[in-house]
Amino acid sequence: AVEDPGYPPPRLVLAARGVRVAPVPVDASGIVVRAIPAGTRLVYVTPSHQYPLGLSMSLERRLELLDWAERNDAVLVEDDYDTEFRYTGRPLEPLHSLDSRGRVVYVGSFSKVLSPALRLGFLIAPPSLVPALVKARYLTDWHAPNVEQAALAAFMAEGGFARHVRRMRKVYRERHELLTRSLASFADFLTPLPSSAGLHLSAVASSDCGPLVRAARRHGVRLYSLGDFGVGARRHGLVFGYGAVAAERIEPGLARLRALADGGAA
Amino acid sequence: AVEDPGYPPPRLVLAARGVRVAPVPVDASGIVVRAIPAGTRLVYVTPSHQYPLGLSMSLERRLELLDWAERNDAVLVEDDYDTEFRYTGRPLEPLHSLDSRGRVVYVGSFSKVLSPALRLGFLIAPPSLVPALVKARYLTDWHAPNVEQAALAAFMAEGGFARHVRRMRKVYRERHELLTRSLASFADFLTPLPSSAGLHLSAVASSDCGPLVRAARRHGVRLYSLGDFGVGARRHGLVFGYGAVAAERIEPGLARLRALADGGAA
Repeated sequence: AVEDPGYPPPRLVLAARGVRVAPVPVDASGIVVRAIPAGTRLVYVTPSHQYPLGLSMSLERRLELLDWAERNDAVLVEDDYDTEFRYTGRPLEPLHSLDSRGRVVYVGSFSKVLSPALRLGFLIAPPSLVPALVKARYLTDWHAPNVEQAALAAFMAEGGFARHVRRMRKVYRERHELLTRSLASFADFLTPLPSSAGLHLSAVASSDCGPLVRAARRHGVRLYSLGDFGVGARRHGLVFGYGAVAAERIEPGLARLRALADGGAA
Repeated sequence: AVEDPGYPPPRLVLAARGVRVAPVPVDASGIVVRAIPAGTRLVYVTPSHQYPLGLSMSLERRLELLDWAERNDAVLVEDDYDTEFRYTGRPLEPLHSLDSRGRVVYVGSFSKVLSPALRLGFLIAPPSLVPALVKARYLTDWHAPNVEQAALAAFMAEGGFARHVRRMRKVYRERHELLTRSLASFADFLTPLPSSAGLHLSAVASSDCGPLVRAARRHGVRLYSLGDFGVGARRHGLVFGYGAVAAERIEPGLARLRALADGGAA
């Protein structure tokens, strides 16, 4: 089972392997556990920063999901892809820390915190799954690029990684705040969703944003329609990524988007 | 279908995907085309340097395999993993060059010629397969490590890559010749197979080499049993890799192996 709306690749990878994948709705507290179909063996979730909605799974829901996994002999894959950059509040305990029964595979990535060009990530798995994961790794790409692994290890040991996270947190927080403020001028059709971490912000809309997204792309403003991440009931809205957009380019981009939304050429 | 004996990962990857994989015997000219089962859709081969035997597929067999592919609407995957290092003779035309009907996916790797740590390779595919390959790439690891790609491109543009191949060809040729000469002292049970390229040499034996390989590993000599690469009729023999073994370590290693073969401790 996967979150709906959710990050498309896990659903596509599982489906390409012939696995039956159930999209499960997400509410303000996270994946709706009672909607997970009977017989589900694995649930892929993004508890700390739901992709694409940006919400955090509540502690109550985390515990409910762990209980469900234990009762159903299932595995939870917790993708914690971008919470190094947290702007407000304290993070909740990850499922992996709350789990005492070996139900959680915790997945982390350096794609967001450093660069997708690195192709580095990691996972923490319960011992029972390690032999299968080792085999799967052998059959996909065998091993990680050693040069980057060594460079990253040295960067961490020297304290450079922690410094980078601290420095970039300020940069991204500035963009996050600027974007949130600027979205006020879209209050006629956009409602930003609360988000306290990461590199994207989502907003729900009263109508389909697909045409607006396509028009914006033609005018050099790249954003995503929330509808593209849904499988069942598609939500209307927009997803704004700001990991690669300098602060000074946020307002001009939104001004162009405003003009397009008003039906004018930008 | 895959070669038997052959390189295990392609067989395992296909089998893990639920594909029925037929091992097809290899003779001195290459894969035995008439032994490929009816209904086969894809054949994975190593024409320029058969893994693990080290033989080269004859031109006649190459043409026969291409004709077979055309008649059976099948794809040939040509893995040309190590022919940058050629010591004698001229290479035969790869299947990819002989193919005028879009039947061949040519696969190259920088693992042997530079380093497996790079995790870089490439493929040349007929246009009809490109959309499917793009999707498959998205669902495996999305994209290659950009930093290494850029570094390798610069290394090639500056001529460093060609210089590296020329320099290493001498180094590996020396090891190849030394190993071939030294194997004369194993003539009582080993017959080296002709090999004019690459980083390994195989020799057939009159009896199972598994116990000798295990004993050698316990004594710090790492080599492989030919039997481990076979699926159907397992051939007896040894596979010597010399890509990572300095020339001065070849003779001491073989002396230890000789002592073990004679039943003595090394």
